[in-house]
Amino acid sequence: MTLKLGVIGAGAIGQDHIRRCMQTLSGSRITAVNDINPDNAGSAVARYAADARIFDDPHALIRSDDVDAVIVTSWGATHEAFVLATIAAGKPVFCEKPLATTAEACRRIVEAEMKHGRRLVQVGFMRPYDAGYRALKATLDSGRIGEPLMLHCAHRNPRVGKNYTTDMAITDTLIHELHVLRWMLDDDYVSAQVLYPRKSGKALEHLRDPQIVLLETARGTRIDVEIFVNCQYGYDVQCEVIGELGIARLPEPSAVPLRSEAARSEAILMDWKERFIGAYDVELQDFIDGVRAGVLRGPDAWSGYCAAVAADACVAAQTSGAVTPISLPAAPAFYR
Amino acid sequence: MTLKLGVIGAGAIGQDHIRRCMQTLSGSRITAVNDINPDNAGSAVARYAADARIFDDPHALIRSDDVDAVIVTSWGATHEAFVLATIAAGKPVFCEKPLATTAEACRRIVEAEMKHGRRLVQVGFMRPYDAGYRALKATLDSGRIGEPLMLHCAHRNPRVGKNYTTDMAITDTLIHELHVLRWMLDDDYVSAQVLYPRKSGKALEHLRDPQIVLLETARGTRIDVEIFVNCQYGYDVQCEVIGELGIARLPEPSAVPLRSEAARSEAILMDWKERFIGAYDVELQDFIDGVRAGVLRGPDAWSGYCAAVAADACVAAQTSGAVTPISLPAAPAFYR
Amino acid sequence: MTLKLGVIGAGAIGQDHIRRCMQTLSGSRITAVNDINPDNAGSAVARYAADARIFDDPHALIRSDDVDAVIVTSWGATHEAFVLATIAAGKPVFCEKPLATTAEACRRIVEAEMKHGRRLVQVGFMRPYDAGYRALKATLDSGRIGEPLMLHCAHRNPRVGKNYTTDMAITDTLIHELHVLRWMLDDDYVSAQVLYPRKSGKALEHLRDPQIVLLETARGTRIDVEIFVNCQYGYDVQCEVIGELGIARLPEPSAVPLRSEAARSEAILMDWKERFIGAYDVELQDFIDGVRAGVLRGPDAWSGYCAAVAADACVAAQTSGAVTPISLPAAPAFYR
Amino acid sequence: MTLKLGVIGAGAIGQDHIRRCMQTLSGSRITAVNDINPDNAGSAVARYAADARIFDDPHALIRSDDVDAVIVTSWGATHEAFVLATIAAGKPVFCEKPLATTAEACRRIVEAEMKHGRRLVQVGFMRPYDAGYRALKATLDSGRIGEPLMLHCAHRNPRVGKNYTTDMAITDTLIHELHVLRWMLDDDYVSAQVLYPRKSGKALEHLRDPQIVLLETARGTRIDVEIFVNCQYGYDVQCEVIGELGIARLPEPSAVPLRSEAARSEAILMDWKERFIGAYDVELQDFIDGVRAGVLRGPDAWSGYCAAVAADACVAAQTSGAVTPISLPAAPAFYR
Ligand SMILES: NC(=O)c1ccc[n+]([C@@H]2O[C@H](COP(=O)([O-])OP(=O)(O)OC[C@H]3O[C@@H](n4cnc5c(N)ncnc54)[C@H](O)[C@@H]3O)[C@@H](O)[C@H]2O)c1
Ligand SMILES: NC(=O)c1ccc[n+]([C@@H]2O[C@H](COP(=O)([O-])OP(=O)(O)OC[C@H]3O[C@@H](n4cnc5c(N)ncnc54)[C@H](O)[C@@H]3O)[C@@H](O)[C@H]2O)c1
Ligand SMILES: NC(=O)c1ccc[n+]([C@@H]2O[C@H](COP(=O)([O-])OP(=O)(O)OC[C@H]3O[C@@H](n4cnc5c(N)ncnc54)[C@H](O)[C@@H]3O)[C@@H](O)[C@H]2O)c1
Ligand SMILES: NC(=O)c1ccc[n+]([C@@H]2O[C@H](COP(=O)([O-])OP(=O)(O)OC[C@H]3O[C@@H](n4cnc5c(N)ncnc54)[C@H](O)[C@@H]3O)[C@@H](O)[C@H]2O)c1
Repeated sequence: MTLKLGVIGAGAIGQDHIRRCMQTLSGSRITAVNDINPDNAGSAVARYAADARIFDDPHALIRSDDVDAVIVTSWGATHEAFVLATIAAGKPVFCEKPLATTAEACRRIVEAEMKHGRRLVQVGFMRPYDAGYRALKATLDSGRIGEPLMLHCAHRNPRVGKNYTTDMAITDTLIHELHVLRWMLDDDYVSAQVLYPRKSGKALEHLRDPQIVLLETARGTRIDVEIFVNCQYGYDVQCEVIGELGIARLPEPSAVPLRSEAARSEAILMDWKERFIGAYDVELQDFIDGVRAGVLRGPDAWSGYCAAVAADACVAAQTSGAVTPISLPAAPAFYR
Repeated sequence: MTLKLGVIGAGAIGQDHIRRCMQTLSGSRITAVNDINPDNAGSAVARYAADARIFDDPHALIRSDDVDAVIVTSWGATHEAFVLATIAAGKPVFCEKPLATTAEACRRIVEAEMKHGRRLVQVGFMRPYDAGYRALKATLDSGRIGEPLMLHCAHRNPRVGKNYTTDMAITDTLIHELHVLRWMLDDDYVSAQVLYPRKSGKALEHLRDPQIVLLETARGTRIDVEIFVNCQYGYDVQCEVIGELGIARLPEPSAVPLRSEAARSEAILMDWKERFIGAYDVELQDFIDGVRAGVLRGPDAWSGYCAAVAADACVAAQTSGAVTPISLPAAPAFYR
Repeated sequence: MTLKLGVIGAGAIGQDHIRRCMQTLSGSRITAVNDINPDNAGSAVARYAADARIFDDPHALIRSDDVDAVIVTSWGATHEAFVLATIAAGKPVFCEKPLATTAEACRRIVEAEMKHGRRLVQVGFMRPYDAGYRALKATLDSGRIGEPLMLHCAHRNPRVGKNYTTDMAITDTLIHELHVLRWMLDDDYVSAQVLYPRKSGKALEHLRDPQIVLLETARGTRIDVEIFVNCQYGYDVQCEVIGELGIARLPEPSAVPLRSEAARSEAILMDWKERFIGAYDVELQDFIDGVRAGVLRGPDAWSGYCAAVAADACVAAQTSGAVTPISLPAAPAFYR
Repeated sequence: MTLKLGVIGAGAIGQDHIRRCMQTLSGSRITAVNDINPDNAGSAVARYAADARIFDDPHALIRSDDVDAVIVTSWGATHEAFVLATIAAGKPVFCEKPLATTAEACRRIVEAEMKHGRRLVQVGFMRPYDAGYRALKATLDSGRIGEPLMLHCAHRNPRVGKNYTTDMAITDTLIHELHVLRWMLDDDYVSAQVLYPRKSGKALEHLRDPQIVLLETARGTRIDVEIFVNCQYGYDVQCEVIGELGIARLPEPSAVPLRSEAARSEAILMDWKERFIGAYDVELQDFIDGVRAGVLRGPDAWSGYCAAVAADACVAAQTSGAVTPISLPAAPAFYR
């Protein structure tokens, strides 16, 4: 009864998920791999899944009897087609973020899934699986700090390459906050505004960095997110919730407290890949367990659609400088 | 050569400053006290300054040969007249904040002092004397975190009484940030915007609480200040500076680290009076030393004027909801 | 090639390990369970391992073709016989701590394993698998704080029941430090001394609590371990290493930083079972991976023997009050 | 009614106290200065106390009508004679630590003061005036952590010069703990033991460093103090009290929290002179206020004597390696 998984896209995160299923997680194995670049599929199979079959055609993989569920880890622009095809085959699919690159495409997936009549899609937003975010949400839900009124957040990288453009601060970086804060607050965004502080001398010519995004939710909670992708000092994700009775904060990643060279100190991570490393395991195990139990509980297609809509509004706000409304239809009963 | 000080206004902070000069600080004594309420003057003299003379007329006190310098601690609305009279008498004056209640009144004091030709006024903004703010400014000035790009600040009180109105979040609370951040950054404000998050259920009917004030400076630094005067949990002043190379933060007030009842904890102050208690001593000692040395170095009348102008813009922004420009003439050479 | 595991002793930790292998870890499944109390075996199988066979005879389980390796989680006094039998069967065995209840019994296991000629035994000391201890050891090994000169440690429980006796402070509580510190320092103990501070009013009549154990190592490092099993406030494990150049400390377990009710605080765990919960997973996965790869790397029988010898000396020191030598033969080449 | 103070010994701390009285504190001035090295007296007067008279003879200074009270800041070996002479003159005396260099000499001062019939002596142990130690004692006295059972302390310096000998770890370094812990616990020492850990490679040939001193009090509280005077990383004083209900710790000196260069950090002081800089002010102001009010409340001669007796025992324990009893007579009623 081990779950048989097929993977489309054996790049960086695809290979990592293959390794995870084969060496760390319980209850699944990789039986099929496809990549537009056959070398990538080949090397993934050689390293982690000797018994898996390499498919030339991703759609053959999706249909294969040897595949119970599909993991989509190819480039974002290709997600929509693979997710729709897997839904059409009636099989569960774990799709790395983004669900699709436009809100309309996400909407099409939502429609297809509703038409199918049962949840099949889990989106690879991993922060809700992070122990820190879970503990923070548990604190909120306990009522200990009262209703949330404000959130002060930050998403900082040491530096970015020259392909990183101003809008990617939203679509690549903020997208994780857009997803996880909505989950944490159980609330919807209604507007966005973007401020540009004095630019860092460390940012490349073409890039506005840092930026501050101001969000408002349906219940009136105000969120400010500082995005600073050339902060030099570390990969640092901050989230502080100001409630009516008190304040709760995302825990810092664990580090050895040192006293040395005239300072007390704790290391900050430099590499984003280490920050949520534990969350990827929990996320994928939850998908596997969910498929086996017949009930997916992770980030759903609707949340992928909502993140896409909010991101579009933020990108518009980057250009206009104005307070930009975010309008979402009420969540269909299917997703409540 | 002990400095002889006359005090106008022997209320809460007036009595405290009298005690300070007589029992804690070096180089001065209180020789004269005036209060519109003679009981207050009487009790202050009885408790702390038996040899001081009680004046019925504040202007007689200002002119008295037994008064080298004046401390003005009466209600804000009366400050202008007393400060102008002391300048006219050619004597130094320490005036509690606000310097005056309108920007125009502050401007008149600035003009009078410049006309006199020598600095005579120190405004009672004490945060630049706080060891924490000084250490934070020293860190900025060291270049260790590079140029400041953003500031995230908070000014929180456990609760306020029913006389506290929405605009007082600016004129009574934010006013300290308006002064100290300008001093810390050595920069001027150019605009203000005010956001109203979801209101706390703990705030009274008539009060918007919390509020978020967004400021921009001439160099483009973006400042957000959360004002939350019914936060319940403590009197808490936060200031975090995000620089090009790193981040520096205002130290927390010292507290005993405890492990008890399933928690590691440190106490947060509940009473604002304790928060900057050390700073009042340093501030007034600096005034005394400055007068004796003939050179005042503390917060000057210009900084009092700038705070008033910025506060006016913030109050306008509270009503309009719009980004409101703050326009200050360049600082006169006299104040540079 | 999934590893087939047989479990002897399906009590608290036995059931937990069964659940772990079946639901969380990769590469193994439970095929056989034995317990002297058949109800325990039955309930474990019913809840977590429906396909496993229940054995009446633990030795039949050990010999079964359906068992590739054995997990011993019965009471300590029974460990020796089961471990020796598994070695005799030439199969790998994961034995919960203690390896055996006397140093002599541990010694017999060591001899049997050496005679067999290949490592078969892993002892269930899980702290070397804890992320915090690993990070602390990595800091030491990096040379960043120089050679270790002193260790200040504490092992505290909120409270213990009436069956907990004074010597159990060594054999049940300190035993984990005796193992992990030796691993961390890569050094051997040479003496022990025990001090009895003023007794806590919260400790039962018959129990000396707290106690302080002073250890010295072959390289002269001095270790003090406070054992306080009625400390009320939490389950708290501390370890601080003072090196020639600086100090490194075991990280605190992650907790949500709160500001509420006049305090900044972070929760302390009350239940020891939560403290090293992640380490059990890593430990058992390492055993499974080691067996499959043919190379065990976890805590070996020699370390189990050394812990037993050191514990005996500490118990003697509890009674004598004297500095008590700890003498260990040099580690056989087999274990280096 | 300003208090007229005479100072004997215008070296490092003598000059500092002169500056303090003339520029920082309230209610006193320096009217007389003596130093065996006339240059030191001269420079002190020139810099800080132009109106003070320089005395060639310290005993003339003590007797002078222009001296209400005496500050003794000469070398330790000369303290006894000056303190006894000031008592003989019936004047209050603030004597820097140590009160005298032997327990017998301290005892003679105690006898002389009792014979005089009224407290005249304050010893310059400043830690009880440190805000951190006061807050820690207030926590203990509040009952919040229950009765104190154990103390874990450390006294660390970055490095010491070649004149620093092994016994000075007691007489120069530990002496402050011996005084302040007795004050904090309101308890007496009954025994001492000294352990020598592995020696730091950074310590000079002739010096045992670090050392661990184990003290026991009359109520059974166990204290361990790590003394490490070549710890390299900073001047660091630690004190942790383990009580029946919880743990309280000496606060760290305030420092700016930084995020930079892959670390969160706060500076540690390198220079011991900065650590208790605020306490010296409070200590001397308390002496001045006490003299003016006719009631000294600071560290008394008996506490100076007790510290000397305990230090003698610790030095004996350094050599013997044995548990060494500390025997003090009950405190005379005069000192209770
Ligand atoms: N959740 C996270 O934190 C996280 C982190 C990294 C990446 N991602 C997401 O995972 C996805 C993959 O990212 P990556 O970093 O692994 O990229 P990558 O470029 O390393 O790998 C993508 C792989 O997909 C293959 N591929 C592309 N188009 C294909 C197609 N049509 N059919 C089959 N294979 C195709 C490529 O050849 C490549 O091997 C992206 O959507 C990215 O946003 C998520
Ligand atoms: N820097 C700070 O943190 C801080 C803190 C508190 C107050 N303040 C400022 O200090 C001033 C006084 O505040 P307070 O809390 O002591 O108020 P208060 O009401 O306790 O005292 C004011 C005193 O001034 C007297 N007074 C009023 N008008 C007078 C007049 N025309 N002539 C003489 N005396 C007059 C009143 O009788 C009263 O005794 C205010 O400007 C306030 O903003 C500053
Ligand atoms: N590593 C750790 O942190 C940790 C934690 C808890 C327990 N342990 C160790 O695990 C072992 C078990 O502890 P527990 O808490 O699970 O105890 P438990 O009493 O809950 O379970 C022990 C089980 O073993 C069974 N058993 C006893 N003798 C047996 C025998 N001869 N043959 C077959 N079954 C037998 C019992 O019936 C019981 O079901 C002990 O050695 C204990 O020290 C280690
Ligand atoms: N409380 C503390 O933390 C602390 C700190 C430093 C020093 N102290 C104590 O203060 C005392 C002085 O220390 P210091 O560092 O200032 O030393 P120092 O050598 O700098 O100064 C001592 C001064 O006393 C003078 N002096 C010596 N013998 C004298 C005599 N017989 N008559 C008159 N003057 C004499 C010397 O000429 C010198 O100027 C010592 O007892 C020391 O232990 C205490």
